[in-house]
Amino acid sequence: MTKSTNKASVPGFLAHGVSAGIKGGKQKDLGLIFSTIPAKAAALFTKNTFKAAPVLIDAERIKRGMAQAILTNSGCANAATGKEGMADALAVSAAAVRQLKIPEEHLLLCSTGVIGKRLPVRKIESGLGKLVRGLNEFGIEDAEAAMMTTDKYPKIAVRKGIVGAKDITICGIAKGAGMIEPNMATLLTYVMTDALIDTKALNTVFHQAIDLTFNAVSVDGCMSTNDTAIILANGLAGNNPLERAQARLQRFREMLTDVLAELAQAVVKDGEGATKFITVVVEGAKSKSDARRVAYSVANSNLVKTAFFGEDPNWGRILAAIGASGILLEKEKVSLSIGNMTVFVQDAPANLPPTGLKEIFRDGNIEIRIGLGGGDKSYSVYTSDLSYDYVKINASYST
Amino acid sequence: MTKSTNKASVPGFLAHGVSAGIKGGKQKDLGLIFSTIPAKAAALFTKNTFKAAPVLIDAERIKRGMAQAILTNSGCANAATGKEGMADALAVSAAAVRQLKIPEEHLLLCSTGVIGKRLPVRKIESGLGKLVRGLNEFGIEDAEAAMMTTDKYPKIAVRKGIVGAKDITICGIAKGAGMIEPNMATLLTYVMTDALIDTKALNTVFHQAIDLTFNAVSVDGCMSTNDTAIILANGLAGNNPLERAQARLQRFREMLTDVLAELAQAVVKDGEGATKFITVVVEGAKSKSDARRVAYSVANSNLVKTAFFGEDPNWGRILAAIGASGILLEKEKVSLSIGNMTVFVQDAPANLPPTGLKEIFRDGNIEIRIGLGGGDKSYSVYTSDLSYDYVKINASYST
Repeated sequence: MTKSTNKASVPGFLAHGVSAGIKGGKQKDLGLIFSTIPAKAAALFTKNTFKAAPVLIDAERIKRGMAQAILTNSGCANAATGKEGMADALAVSAAAVRQLKIPEEHLLLCSTGVIGKRLPVRKIESGLGKLVRGLNEFGIEDAEAAMMTTDKYPKIAVRKGIVGAKDITICGIAKGAGMIEPNMATLLTYVMTDALIDTKALNTVFHQAIDLTFNAVSVDGCMSTNDTAIILANGLAGNNPLERAQARLQRFREMLTDVLAELAQAVVKDGEGATKFITVVVEGAKSKSDARRVAYSVANSNLVKTAFFGEDPNWGRILAAIGASGILLEKEKVSLSIGNMTVFVQDAPANLPPTGLKEIFRDGNIEIRIGLGGGDKSYSVYTSDLSYDYVKINASYST
Repeated sequence: MTKSTNKASVPGFLAHGVSAGIKGGKQKDLGLIFSTIPAKAAALFTKNTFKAAPVLIDAERIKRGMAQAILTNSGCANAATGKEGMADALAVSAAAVRQLKIPEEHLLLCSTGVIGKRLPVRKIESGLGKLVRGLNEFGIEDAEAAMMTTDKYPKIAVRKGIVGAKDITICGIAKGAGMIEPNMATLLTYVMTDALIDTKALNTVFHQAIDLTFNAVSVDGCMSTNDTAIILANGLAGNNPLERAQARLQRFREMLTDVLAELAQAVVKDGEGATKFITVVVEGAKSKSDARRVAYSVANSNLVKTAFFGEDPNWGRILAAIGASGILLEKEKVSLSIGNMTVFVQDAPANLPPTGLKEIFRDGNIEIRIGLGGGDKSYSVYTSDLSYDYVKINASYST
């Protein structure tokens, strides 16, 4: 398996991104991913009650297990827009499939940006011609740029490897930054692959890989109305077909998980205002759900996050967050390590050289390891710190 | 009922606060409340697994339903300090009851400050003489000052009224500011009253009043290791005794709730970095627990809180937080109003004059009203916004 992000491309996939004036400037805000032939498709969506119009449309269309294109706009989420928002999304869909000459149900739509604002349908319609004409095999970076909102840098991950006796490529892109505690997926992440794979197998491995990656990150504990993860597999690699319960499917799953892990970590590193990348590992839990509750209680604690931002080795806040998680704990068995230092064990603080801990808090990449001593289940969450810039970015997002 | 906070005093209660050098400066950090006779007592404590040593001690002592004194130190929470922390607290307790000449079980201890640091026992012991000698009937303000940490202003509330044919006084004090989402109580709040009341009745009304007040505030969604709420009733008013299921108990409960509501709201207004006071009212829920989940999902959303700080009328974030609460919602029935403006109803945004909404976000006191249309249960939460100063205060708390 080789790793490369130069001129990302996947056989049989075209892409492009343009400015349609949705954001009001010259920034790219309309992107398209296009498979030259219909692809097997699977997707996961937000569990938020107020799902955006494009999410409701995609959830219906994906049931067929096939798709050929993903059209994305940034600058407007088209969420909390009622029947008019649904009509707007369908108008954009109709205009796009006319240009792409594909069946309407093979187009998936994604929107990201401010909630509660109407979609600027005319601007999108007039941008579509340029967008479709510009489709090209190295256009993934432009498509990715078009879906960025407060992201500081693009997120593209590529893996190539031999699966089922042929070279295959898996390329994923993502946008993140804020309103990030996905319940099923991140804000938006798309995976393109030329692997030949059965629809059920694709669905299964995609869910498994998302669960291990995007469902284990949190920037701010907020679940969006638009979270969407889509995978398209066009089969052009001509490999021995991947089906469920096969050894070679395992290889594909590993590569896919690797791509999604890189993207999920990039989303946290580029979290709004993030200056630290924090991994919270919880081990020794009675259940995975217990481990997850403790991990998120720590990862979403504003007091823990501000302490890391300030490089203030105030580990008591982590312990308070563990104790506030609401699960049944035997506190004598709980241990807490930060970096390579044990700070709390057997219901008492460890003897610490304070300078060493201070040093660990200065690092940009910090691991918190929590042992519960009650079982063998574990869970890891990636998160970021809470800085002035998070407040700054979010104090004036819509205006 | 008259309201006054001038020279707070309650018949039969003495108080004082001094600097024992725990915080390292000349700030007051050791406070004492003392009833001249043993008082009926009730208390609520944090549900955090890592309860501080003084919380564990008080939870045992309060079982007798009697207490005479509350000794508080700020600057050190004496939490996550293991057996040594327990021995430290007991050493302080022994020294204090020697000076106060009361049985050890009649002293309650509270600590607040950094978690995981040993209590400076000698400093506290040497401060005790000055503290006890200075006890006086107008010392409540000094005792309150001694328990402040990042609080910007003192929180004292007093109500006087006729209950059971006599004038009675209820005086409450509180400290708050950060790590505030009490599950049972705020960080520290004490109530002194001269009312004559039965122990069971006292316990019942105190729980009820805390539930309506301190259990309905959130500054940052973090539950402390030290949350403690205590009420002492010395009976010196000589009123007709208050017992359960009496009409006159209702009068006492109203006054008590009024005192605690004033303190709870003061804790939110003085929340770390707070610039806004936000009331989240959820109505029309199937159950109180559903209403509570929605209210806290909104009140604890960093994106909602930063939007209020930035006076950015991004109401879609409130809707996203409602939808992320995890309860079963019929979205067509959900309505959202901010101030006097309905912004979302019947699954669609209301037609809004944008300037009007911007104006409401500029106000220092904002009410969010959420209708779920699914029942008749409701819940209200008081919260604050999330500002640069929250990050600033918490980025360097322990150092």
